[in-house]
Amino acid sequence: MRLSKRAESIQASPIRKLAPLAVRAKARGISIYHLNIGQPDIPTPEAYLKAVQRYGGPVLSYGPSDGLPELKKAVSTYFAANSIEIAPEELIITTGGSEAALFALNLVGDPGDEVIVPEPFYTNYNGFATLAGMKVVPVTTRAEDGFHLPPMEDIEKKVTSRTRAILVCSPNNPTGTILAREELEGLARIALQHGLFLIGDEVYKEFTYDGGHHTSLLELPEVRENAIVVDSISKRFSACGARIGALISRNEDVIDMAMKFAQARLCPPTIEQLGAAEAYKLGRDYFDGVRTEYQQRRDALLEGLSAHSGIYVKKPAGAFYMVLRLPVDDTESFARWMLDEFEVDGETVMVAPAAGFYATPGLGMNEVRVAYVLQIPRLKKAANILVEGVRAYNRSRGRSVAAGS
Amino acid sequence: MRLSKRAESIQASPIRKLAPLAVRAKARGISIYHLNIGQPDIPTPEAYLKAVQRYGGPVLSYGPSDGLPELKKAVSTYFAANSIEIAPEELIITTGGSEAALFALNLVGDPGDEVIVPEPFYTNYNGFATLAGMKVVPVTTRAEDGFHLPPMEDIEKKVTSRTRAILVCSPNNPTGTILAREELEGLARIALQHGLFLIGDEVYKEFTYDGGHHTSLLELPEVRENAIVVDSISKRFSACGARIGALISRNEDVIDMAMKFAQARLCPPTIEQLGAAEAYKLGRDYFDGVRTEYQQRRDALLEGLSAHSGIYVKKPAGAFYMVLRLPVDDTESFARWMLDEFEVDGETVMVAPAAGFYATPGLGMNEVRVAYVLQIPRLKKAANILVEGVRAYNRSRGRSVAAGS
Repeated sequence: MRLSKRAESIQASPIRKLAPLAVRAKARGISIYHLNIGQPDIPTPEAYLKAVQRYGGPVLSYGPSDGLPELKKAVSTYFAANSIEIAPEELIITTGGSEAALFALNLVGDPGDEVIVPEPFYTNYNGFATLAGMKVVPVTTRAEDGFHLPPMEDIEKKVTSRTRAILVCSPNNPTGTILAREELEGLARIALQHGLFLIGDEVYKEFTYDGGHHTSLLELPEVRENAIVVDSISKRFSACGARIGALISRNEDVIDMAMKFAQARLCPPTIEQLGAAEAYKLGRDYFDGVRTEYQQRRDALLEGLSAHSGIYVKKPAGAFYMVLRLPVDDTESFARWMLDEFEVDGETVMVAPAAGFYATPGLGMNEVRVAYVLQIPRLKKAANILVEGVRAYNRSRGRSVAAGS
Repeated sequence: MRLSKRAESIQASPIRKLAPLAVRAKARGISIYHLNIGQPDIPTPEAYLKAVQRYGGPVLSYGPSDGLPELKKAVSTYFAANSIEIAPEELIITTGGSEAALFALNLVGDPGDEVIVPEPFYTNYNGFATLAGMKVVPVTTRAEDGFHLPPMEDIEKKVTSRTRAILVCSPNNPTGTILAREELEGLARIALQHGLFLIGDEVYKEFTYDGGHHTSLLELPEVRENAIVVDSISKRFSACGARIGALISRNEDVIDMAMKFAQARLCPPTIEQLGAAEAYKLGRDYFDGVRTEYQQRRDALLEGLSAHSGIYVKKPAGAFYMVLRLPVDDTESFARWMLDEFEVDGETVMVAPAAGFYATPGLGMNEVRVAYVLQIPRLKKAANILVEGVRAYNRSRGRSVAAGS
């Protein structure tokens, strides 16, 4: 039986593909520091859990396709507290940010159309684009530039007659970079010039450090009709398993059409929406604590990694990821070796090889993504094991540490 | 800003599009018997609700992309109790049957490919096909035949070089028809002859009356590699808001590729899966009570409708829907009139015009779908109001009842 081309061509998750090696390592009694996935260990807010526990039925019925009114209102209120006016009618609750991203691509393009995405990027954009039949056109960003955007003319050169949108993630997964307002304004000029949509994956919006601020596409009045924002509670409230997100746009046609997609899949999960609505009522100070915790983790991880002069990273300003350049030839081989052959007192570290975050073949071979989603003492140990691992890996290959670029 | 062709062309839900009229009617103080939607009033099992209430966190984390192991095992056990051996590895938990159907289409076809579907059919297949860029090719079934399949040669004539699958729903939404094993075997011969997949939407599997039995595509050994089954707990456990379903296939390639789609959207909602796993442990006798209740409802509705000789319907064998032919010229106009202008003691009935369930233009204009998801005393009142409504509508248009076909 021949399956569809899209089924054959869709990328297996590069983040999850090393999972079987981790299972084997655990079977050998090794414990693993999972720096490879963005699964926060911060407790889900009590308010969320209590709302779930309060749910008494009697009939767990379909909700509205655009989400429960109380959740839509809570999201609107949350944005207002961020000085962004979004009416409940300007957003649709989705089954995770994933569904919002998939809806966004399906809204802006047809099979064969293109979307420009700065790389490295969240790998599942590949999957969503494949499902939508669209082509991801990468714009390479570099570690030396802190993964900020290249000159706007380099981005504009990528625009073709098939380009429908530019998709940016800020604060960024995998790099932690926060795009400056000027960068977004540059993209806005390109979007207006060429009639493109701007899709903003802003799910890490609250995770900004050192007093920094994230500018939303929704704050740029000139792209009122062009901007579509993908949002999610997964990281915001440490509720990844809830699968509650939102698609936000002030463009009425976008919302009207997205509503048709939403109706086709009936509704997002009801009980999880009840939890989300309560979490959104927590107020701004909830985030202060979370932000402080992540900033300290980032700093602890960076300090631990600084023990190896061959590990290159610029301090990222947001999210809870960073891309490290390692002094090894192939980080996928290194990541496998860490799971299969390395340990320090029965412990090792799992990282995500970065090649899967690039669309351009050959890039990211000496980079890994790490997430700082563990408590500080554990992060420090993980950093130490990673440093030792890099040294041991190169010794095992007869490569001197100094040879690392 | 130009949106995608698929966004422009995707069908608005014909089931939900009369909703604003219902809102207006309610605002006038009219109460409405909702025969238009398949939202059961049967309580969600206590076991489900208790599992949800027990959930204590602390971190609502991502689950496996293919679903929680305990739920996969529970689904497998459920099928075994139905004499269908499905290993946990042969199924992927999805976000509702909707996602399973969307995955199935994306797995078997690319943009421009075709899927043959007997009409009338569940209207959201249109939305899924539009999202997948595929074309629905209808095979018309008729009320006089109890909406059973036409001769197999009529179906085979629809096969082209672009045909990738035949999609059947049994027990059927909207008709309530259960396809006989011989019908499925006929489809199997076509599928084997032309190398097609057979997609079975079997979410109403438990809803079979008069001692009848539903045969699953999974019970046909000859299409072991061709069969993909869409499953859901929405109706089975009266948990529509849970958004928990499954994609089932013994074809390893199908599961492997579906897993890549599943990874792209990370995982189904976690807490709802915990509830579903407990519901699946209820055992077979749970369904006996539900089945008896629905059978009695069906009979009560049919008896009530028999008061009008111009309403045509053959007793359906399963699900909880039926398609009625009404002696009116345009059931959409009738359905609107029932909401806008008709009432009996402050009450009216909402039905779903059937034209939206057909892909062939012009069909279904004198048909409506009704769902018997209300308690019997309410169903009887609803049937009476519907009968009175048909009479009054025709009087208001100067059309004699006898003129109804």
